[in-house]
Amino acid sequence: MALIPGGVTAPAAYVAGGVAAGVKRSGRPDLAIVLSDRDANAAGVFTTNCVKAAPVLLGAAMVLEQPSRVRGIFAVSGCANAMTGEEGIEDNRTILAAAESELGLPGGTLLPACTGVIGPRIPVDRIVRALPSLRGALARGVEGSERAAHAILTTDTRVKQSAVRVRLGDGTVVRVGGIAKGSGMIAPRLALPHATTLGFLTTDARVGPAALSRVLAHSAERTFNMVNVDGDMSTNDTVYLLANGAAGGESADDDTAFAGAVETVMESLARQIARDGEGATKLLTVNVEGARNLLDARAAARAVVGSTLVKAAIFGADPNVGRIAAALGYSGARLDPSKLSVHLARPRGDVPLIVDGQPVRTLENGGAIRIRDLLRQLDEVPLKIHLHEGRARATAWGCDLSYAYVQINAAYRT
Amino acid sequence: MALIPGGVTAPAAYVAGGVAAGVKRSGRPDLAIVLSDRDANAAGVFTTNCVKAAPVLLGAAMVLEQPSRVRGIFAVSGCANAMTGEEGIEDNRTILAAAESELGLPGGTLLPACTGVIGPRIPVDRIVRALPSLRGALARGVEGSERAAHAILTTDTRVKQSAVRVRLGDGTVVRVGGIAKGSGMIAPRLALPHATTLGFLTTDARVGPAALSRVLAHSAERTFNMVNVDGDMSTNDTVYLLANGAAGGESADDDTAFAGAVETVMESLARQIARDGEGATKLLTVNVEGARNLLDARAAARAVVGSTLVKAAIFGADPNVGRIAAALGYSGARLDPSKLSVHLARPRGDVPLIVDGQPVRTLENGGAIRIRDLLRQLDEVPLKIHLHEGRARATAWGCDLSYAYVQINAAYRT
Repeated sequence: MALIPGGVTAPAAYVAGGVAAGVKRSGRPDLAIVLSDRDANAAGVFTTNCVKAAPVLLGAAMVLEQPSRVRGIFAVSGCANAMTGEEGIEDNRTILAAAESELGLPGGTLLPACTGVIGPRIPVDRIVRALPSLRGALARGVEGSERAAHAILTTDTRVKQSAVRVRLGDGTVVRVGGIAKGSGMIAPRLALPHATTLGFLTTDARVGPAALSRVLAHSAERTFNMVNVDGDMSTNDTVYLLANGAAGGESADDDTAFAGAVETVMESLARQIARDGEGATKLLTVNVEGARNLLDARAAARAVVGSTLVKAAIFGADPNVGRIAAALGYSGARLDPSKLSVHLARPRGDVPLIVDGQPVRTLENGGAIRIRDLLRQLDEVPLKIHLHEGRARATAWGCDLSYAYVQINAAYRT
Repeated sequence: MALIPGGVTAPAAYVAGGVAAGVKRSGRPDLAIVLSDRDANAAGVFTTNCVKAAPVLLGAAMVLEQPSRVRGIFAVSGCANAMTGEEGIEDNRTILAAAESELGLPGGTLLPACTGVIGPRIPVDRIVRALPSLRGALARGVEGSERAAHAILTTDTRVKQSAVRVRLGDGTVVRVGGIAKGSGMIAPRLALPHATTLGFLTTDARVGPAALSRVLAHSAERTFNMVNVDGDMSTNDTVYLLANGAAGGESADDDTAFAGAVETVMESLARQIARDGEGATKLLTVNVEGARNLLDARAAARAVVGSTLVKAAIFGADPNVGRIAAALGYSGARLDPSKLSVHLARPRGDVPLIVDGQPVRTLENGGAIRIRDLLRQLDEVPLKIHLHEGRARATAWGCDLSYAYVQINAAYRT
């Protein structure tokens, strides 16, 4: 497997683009489109929040009912189209139909996604008026993916893209690519048709809808669902995976190299989302091993990246390791406090923070100051936790809690 | 039932006090004691965190094994004595024995509690040296409770006390009083002998150990366990209730007025803890009604007070009501988004924020600005939520998320 440039348009026979329609007052791009030149199979995973945005309800129905004749994804940023009732669903249908008509596509072939403020109606007229310019903004390769990746951002500070090339079991070389946005209201628990994390993945592999869905759901569990910026699950989280088969070859339905490529791209996007969490100055990576089972491993890793106090300590470069142990203690994972170990992972040898359930002595007598200096220099803080209860492991990604997070979220809407 | 002054020493035959032993570098008081003149029955509820501090392990064993010959509570602030292994337990035993000896009490009659930084050993020598001065600082009435309430604070900005007088079924007039501390690492889930929220309650009612335990656990579920400052459950949460029977009268074991008095004092302390959450500028009170059952009502109320985004919006006086709906949506409570209603409770008529699942129109066209002005003026933001699924209700208390929270927790230890 090799990393390649191009994001969501790295696979063959995809174009993408983005323009500003005035949904955002800032004038930044707010309409994004990803198109396959030919019919694609599609899978989607969506938020498990009971309060689901209109595009989530529509998109989930589409990938369930007609997953084999999808042509693309049409995303709006700046408005969630959530809590907008039946009118919101009608609005989204109107927008999708207008876009399909403008692009000469059959009806019902564009998958919807939205991100932004919850509550307001989506500005249908402004979006429809911008459709001709969106058509002109479509591009292949690096350029198209860049444009779409920009147009889905809200409080994000940078675009998130990833793509890999992999050789499958039958010798066919396929590509998997994706773009994503995250930043705030990020604690996705995506599930099959029932995830404002957005992720749009494409591949030119030949994969049927059922296999596509299975690969996406499995990969989401290990990647997007292990990201936590603020503990708030959105009404709009949506990840789509399109497979247009343009690379040819045999069916990749059961090809582990294909599944691995999807997970690699999703893990890269997940890390990018965590690193660009609202106000984040540091990426926090928590590896838990020695858990009794996978659920325990995930619960323990999620608790640590989700802990407000751990996040504030990381922002302050404060080796307050008791907060890590407290988070593990309430995670629900089985653990014996006297066996717990926590290390700061370093290329030249891990730095012990907790050994046999007790903070290491070096934290006193100036050791805390040395670790604080180290934490200050790191822009990724990788924690290795061992529960000594079994063999299961999991990784979660989060970020620190800064003054900027409070500023962004105390004044996002008004 | 009437509110009375005096906190933990409002009931008859209790003294309390507090001094500075140098556990805190600041020189502020850090040893607190509450004493009954005679043997008291005791109940305790403790943190359900797997990582339990030494005083939690010791205190839980004591209220299980000998709940009917307790003389008081000995609390240390500035050091959690958590993650300190067997040595930490021995240290705490040494301190308790020295205090009992200094005060002329039988061995094993003082219940321990600690709050502060996790990890360091507790400074036994400094504490033992301060015991004579602690004895001199004991006082009855308002003065004693004040001193003890001060001495258990860490990042708290004010003391927390409450007391009531109530007439029981047999005509006996009894008192229930308490002190508490909270501020950070506050998301207690207290349970019977398995809660750094500390709460010390006293009563002069005659109540046996089993009834005392039942009343305390029931009341904790509805009060302290419904407070959430930062979602982090502590290793040290401890609430004790002592009953010395000094008021005389019949057994109050099954007296509902007594149970009501305990809940009233605990609710007052819970509100005071939430209002003084680290960095808090506003108290957030969430009343959920119309839930399918009690668990749903509690889950829904806890999700809203626990939502980082709701908390940041409250700090910014931002009527971003979609965040409230999103929190309800991921709470696990059953709800139909189209039936949801949310109001801002006001003495002269509630202000609708969400009706039939949609943000009210008045939020647009300047309405958001009026509500923002209102939110700015309030130092308590009372939300009324109706799920329209049943008849269960619950209340939770929290606070906003401010820059000061981040500051306090980015630089607490080093």
